[in-house]
Amino acid sequence: MGVEQHKELLGSIGVDVDRHAKMMAMGLDAYKAQFLGQPNRPKGMAYFDWFMSEIQGQRIAEINQLRAEKKPAVGTFCIFVPEEIVVGAGGACYGLCGGSNATVADAETELPRNICPLIKSAHGFKLQRTCAYTQSSDFIYGETTCEAKKKTWEILAKHHPVHVMNIPHMKREKDLKMWQEEIAEFKEHIEQVSEKKLSLAEMIEGVKKVNAKRSALQRLDALRGMNPDIMPISGKDSLFITQVGFMDDIERYTQKVNELCDELEERVREGVSVFPANTPRIMILGTPLAPPNWKIHTAVESTGGAIINEESCIGHRYYKDNVDVEGVTSEDELYARLMQRYSKIDCACFTPNTGRTEKIVQMYKERKADGVIYYTLSFCHTYNVEAHLVTEALAKEGIPCLVIESDYSPEDAGQIKTRVEAFLESISFKQKAQAFASK
Amino acid sequence: MGVEQHKELLGSIGVDVDRHAKMMAMGLDAYKAQFLGQPNRPKGMAYFDWFMSEIQGQRIAEINQLRAEKKPAVGTFCIFVPEEIVVGAGGACYGLCGGSNATVADAETELPRNICPLIKSAHGFKLQRTCAYTQSSDFIYGETTCEAKKKTWEILAKHHPVHVMNIPHMKREKDLKMWQEEIAEFKEHIEQVSEKKLSLAEMIEGVKKVNAKRSALQRLDALRGMNPDIMPISGKDSLFITQVGFMDDIERYTQKVNELCDELEERVREGVSVFPANTPRIMILGTPLAPPNWKIHTAVESTGGAIINEESCIGHRYYKDNVDVEGVTSEDELYARLMQRYSKIDCACFTPNTGRTEKIVQMYKERKADGVIYYTLSFCHTYNVEAHLVTEALAKEGIPCLVIESDYSPEDAGQIKTRVEAFLESISFKQKAQAFASK
Repeated sequence: MGVEQHKELLGSIGVDVDRHAKMMAMGLDAYKAQFLGQPNRPKGMAYFDWFMSEIQGQRIAEINQLRAEKKPAVGTFCIFVPEEIVVGAGGACYGLCGGSNATVADAETELPRNICPLIKSAHGFKLQRTCAYTQSSDFIYGETTCEAKKKTWEILAKHHPVHVMNIPHMKREKDLKMWQEEIAEFKEHIEQVSEKKLSLAEMIEGVKKVNAKRSALQRLDALRGMNPDIMPISGKDSLFITQVGFMDDIERYTQKVNELCDELEERVREGVSVFPANTPRIMILGTPLAPPNWKIHTAVESTGGAIINEESCIGHRYYKDNVDVEGVTSEDELYARLMQRYSKIDCACFTPNTGRTEKIVQMYKERKADGVIYYTLSFCHTYNVEAHLVTEALAKEGIPCLVIESDYSPEDAGQIKTRVEAFLESISFKQKAQAFASK
Repeated sequence: MGVEQHKELLGSIGVDVDRHAKMMAMGLDAYKAQFLGQPNRPKGMAYFDWFMSEIQGQRIAEINQLRAEKKPAVGTFCIFVPEEIVVGAGGACYGLCGGSNATVADAETELPRNICPLIKSAHGFKLQRTCAYTQSSDFIYGETTCEAKKKTWEILAKHHPVHVMNIPHMKREKDLKMWQEEIAEFKEHIEQVSEKKLSLAEMIEGVKKVNAKRSALQRLDALRGMNPDIMPISGKDSLFITQVGFMDDIERYTQKVNELCDELEERVREGVSVFPANTPRIMILGTPLAPPNWKIHTAVESTGGAIINEESCIGHRYYKDNVDVEGVTSEDELYARLMQRYSKIDCACFTPNTGRTEKIVQMYKERKADGVIYYTLSFCHTYNVEAHLVTEALAKEGIPCLVIESDYSPEDAGQIKTRVEAFLESISFKQKAQAFASK
């Protein structure tokens, strides 16, 4: 099972098989250590545990089977890529490896040390040839959402085919018009790769499949976060499920998430929670959490907190909106609908981005959360600078907030745990004081 | 003289007068220590020495006199701002303070520590109210060339009126069209501030004045850099002259630079150099050098090198191109010409930006330089990541290159000096070896 039985395939797509096998074994060990010991996990997690064991095994075989059938395989680093079009063409659109510290040193032979660890990790995976997803990609679809990525594509293009989507700085009418054109151009590029025209009906079919995936994740989000007294699944498991959504076969995945949600609904009815009563309910805000970056979740949930939502690109920002295809009769109309959906994403790359703060406050209240952690990857200027206005607004609302900036090195794990502990204690103290005052 | 006699004015525009006076005295001391002792300076530097003493004195009085006459005063942080339009309206367009370490700590109360020192310094000047240029501005005209700036404008807008120019990520035809619209919108904004229509003839007059300034700086650039055996002025003085160009009255400044160039032409004819023969001739590449950031120039020219060019926004990128107004008969045509000129700037914010590398190699050969220093401000992702492809191309050409990343703190001055010394030694050794080999 796992990568062992796929060695030949991995070698054929240029993976450094031995190094890859070692890294996968380490990743799987880390997963086992951090995930399997959690108390009272839902039965439905068995599928995601299995996926982890086949994350660069069977899934890679499936993707390469699609490629053999001339279906496109597109690697991405951003949720602005309209995966509906790739899915419509019968292909696979997936997030590339970029959450590991093990590739950072290699990346630093070509990139500055003081840029975002996600970018360095991803670039290092390509230099090392230890990400089977990257190696399986017809092309990598980059974008311009951050300047370190924007400039790294120029270097990455020395090693792998890269196309760049131009995401604007602002969301004025003319910016959105250009955005729509980018989506139309992406479709043409997918047609070139698959050497086949893509019909409107096929694209609408793609949208429906991605909508179904997002709806399943919305269901999970509500089940884990909207029942203040019952948390039927851990934040760490929920994060991993979301992470898998960037790699798995879309229909199988949607089905498995829905099956799990059926189980969670049952748990909510029966009052089965994986956390004790009065566990502080924490929302995570900020930058993406690519696997195996489970650092913050492990820190919070091993020190008496529960994470009930990720206001993140691997999280709520990814699945919160569906594409309305009702009454669409032309390709241009479809591109407009896609653009409308994607431009609702409140990435910190936009200026202004005021809607994000209002949304966070609303989410906090709806979920009856107890505090937020504003998490940024080191050197992510957009989220890092935006933290000032967001945390200022949170302070006005009296919302407890901890700001954590971190990279992928294990060195700050202890310090983060200490800070999280103190933060959770201050929340618990506040809860007790309020309970006492209201007696 | 200096700020003392303008205390009342400074107070009236909200300057923290006492703190400002102390900072100006420190700045002037630093200037005296680093500039006045240079051997054999051109007589024409007397004007620029005087300007330094009045940099936030008489010049501020002049700007506020313009404002009293309803002429616009626009503060900027980027050479993409079309100053021709402000000059056409009879106003002043100037670079804001952003080169000092003394304001960084204040800025860090609202901004992350790990962003570019120029942005932090500028933001700190506003928080401290110690930059009389910022205080004199009708508005600050920001842009989207880097994400730390783009997001900082949102915070700066709490303290001062800010407008943002959208500079695109790419230079495709549609991006350039939008760029042209931004210029037209800027003109409308200037009209609002000055409460007066701005005619095509006035704008063309503005272009001619800015062209004349740029031509004077091109002349200086050729005189200091294109005569391999004679360097009639130091790199540090040349840099300061360029820095003054972002603040001074445009017509007086152009005249003074031309007068100085007359003197330098005389020096070239007579063989008067401020450096000994065989002094290594160094080009600086990279990010802007805002006053009083003279760190690299001081390090190089105090250890036996000469700086012959700044491939920088406060340097060659700023003055290399003029605007062709020949035959312009409509405003749209003028905006198109402005856009054409400005879009030639090879800022690392663009992707791709390959033209920059070719230009650097060409400049190097034309100037018969001996080496380059690729200088980036800390955390400037665009120039920092682009360094990889640039230095790779330089290595192919056999061009000696030293990469220095630095902020405004004095702490790394010693380390930089040591690295520069070793770099200059290696160049001298190479020169001697070549001379020996050719005997």
